[in-house]
Amino acid sequence: MVSSMSDQTSDTHVHPGYMHRKDDYLRRMKRIEGQVRGIERMISDETYCIDILTQVSAVTKALQAVSLGLLDEHLSHCVLDAARADSPDADAKLREASDAIARLVRS
Amino acid sequence: MVSSMSDQTSDTHVHPGYMHRKDDYLRRMKRIEGQVRGIERMISDETYCIDILTQVSAVTKALQAVSLGLLDEHLSHCVLDAARADSPDADAKLREASDAIARLVRS
Amino acid sequence: MVSSMSDQTSDTHVHPGYMHRKDDYLRRMKRIEGQVRGIERMISDETYCIDILTQVSAVTKALQAVSLGLLDEHLSHCVLDAARADSPDADAKLREASDAIARLVRS
Amino acid sequence: MVSSMSDQTSDTHVHPGYMHRKDDYLRRMKRIEGQVRGIERMISDETYCIDILTQVSAVTKALQAVSLGLLDEHLSHCVLDAARADSPDADAKLREASDAIARLVRS
Repeated sequence: MVSSMSDQTSDTHVHPGYMHRKDDYLRRMKRIEGQVRGIERMISDETYCIDILTQVSAVTKALQAVSLGLLDEHLSHCVLDAARADSPDADAKLREASDAIARLVRS
Repeated sequence: MVSSMSDQTSDTHVHPGYMHRKDDYLRRMKRIEGQVRGIERMISDETYCIDILTQVSAVTKALQAVSLGLLDEHLSHCVLDAARADSPDADAKLREASDAIARLVRS
Repeated sequence: MVSSMSDQTSDTHVHPGYMHRKDDYLRRMKRIEGQVRGIERMISDETYCIDILTQVSAVTKALQAVSLGLLDEHLSHCVLDAARADSPDADAKLREASDAIARLVRS
Repeated sequence: MVSSMSDQTSDTHVHPGYMHRKDDYLRRMKRIEGQVRGIERMISDETYCIDILTQVSAVTKALQAVSLGLLDEHLSHCVLDAARADSPDADAKLREASDAIARLVRS
C-alpha cells in the first residue's frame, strides 16, 4: 500500500497543511485525552456537577483551539496553494473549508 | 438550623444530581475518550485536515450534550431540592449554575 | 381581554422574572437595534467584509448577554419561586428552561 | 503588473465579495432588524421569558448565517482572487479571515 501510494503520488504527494506542526497537534490532543480521563475520574468519584462542568468547558475550548489551528493551516496551505497554482481544486477545497467552518460555528 | 444541617449531613452524604445515571455518563465519557484517541491516530497518519475537523466537531457536540445533561440534573436535583427545602443554599447554587451556563454558552 | 385576564389571574398574576429590570432590557435591545441598522448601512456603503463580520460578532455577543440575563432571572424568579411554593409547576418550568439553555448553547 | 494594477484601481474601486448579493444581505438584515424590534415589543408587553429566549436564539442563528455567508464570499472572492493574482495581500487577507473565524466560533 505504501509503495502503490508513493507511485500514485510520486510527484504530487500532498502533505496536509498541519504536517510541519504534527508533533505540536499530537501533544495537544494527548493533553486533551488526559483531561477527558480526568473527567471520567471526577464522575467515578462523584465530584460536584459544577466542577465537572468547568472541566468539560475547558476541554471544549481546547478542542476549539485545535480546530481553529487546523483550519487556519488548511486555508493557508491547501486552499491558497491550490489557488496560487491555478488549480481547479481551489474552489472545491474552499467549499469544503466553508462547510467545516459552518460546522465549527454551529457546534 | 446550622447544627441540624450538620447533623443531617453527617449520615446523609449529599450525592451529586447525576448519581443515578453515573454509569451512563461514564460510558459517554469513555466513548469520547475513544474518539479523542481516534483523532490522535488521524493526526499520526496525516489524515486530511477536513476529515479531522469533522471528528473534532463530533467530539465537541458529544461533550456539549454531556454538559447539558449534567447541568439539567444539577438544576433539577441540587437547585430545586434546595429551594423546596427552603434552604438558604438555593440562591448560591443557582448563581453557580448560571455561571456554568454562561461558560457553556461562551465556550 | 384585559378584564378576562385579570379575572383569571386575579390573585396569582405572574410577572415575568425580568419585570423589575424591564427598562434595562429595553435599553439593551434598542442599542442592539441600532447596531443592526449600523450593519445595514455598512452593507449599503459596501464596507469591507471583515469589518462587517466584526460588527455582527459584537451584536451576537450582546444578544447572548441578554439571553443569559433573562435566563438567569427566569431561573431565580420563576423556577425557584415555584419550587419554594412547592408548586407542581416547578418541574415543568425547569424543563422549559433546560430546553432554552440547550437552544442557547447550540445557537 | 503593479503599474497596471494601480492604473486599474484608480478608477475601479475594489468591490467587497458580497457586492453581487448586496440586496440579499440587506433584505436579511432588515428582517433581523424587524425581529429585534419584535423582541423589544415582547419585553414591553412583559411576555414570558422563555418565549423571548426562543426569539433571541432565532435572531442569533440568523446573524450567524449572515456571518457565514459573508465569510464564505470573502474567502472565495477576496482571498482566493488575491492568491490567484499572486498578490502579496493573500496572506494578510487570510490572516484577517482566520481572526474573523475565531471571533465567530467564540461568539
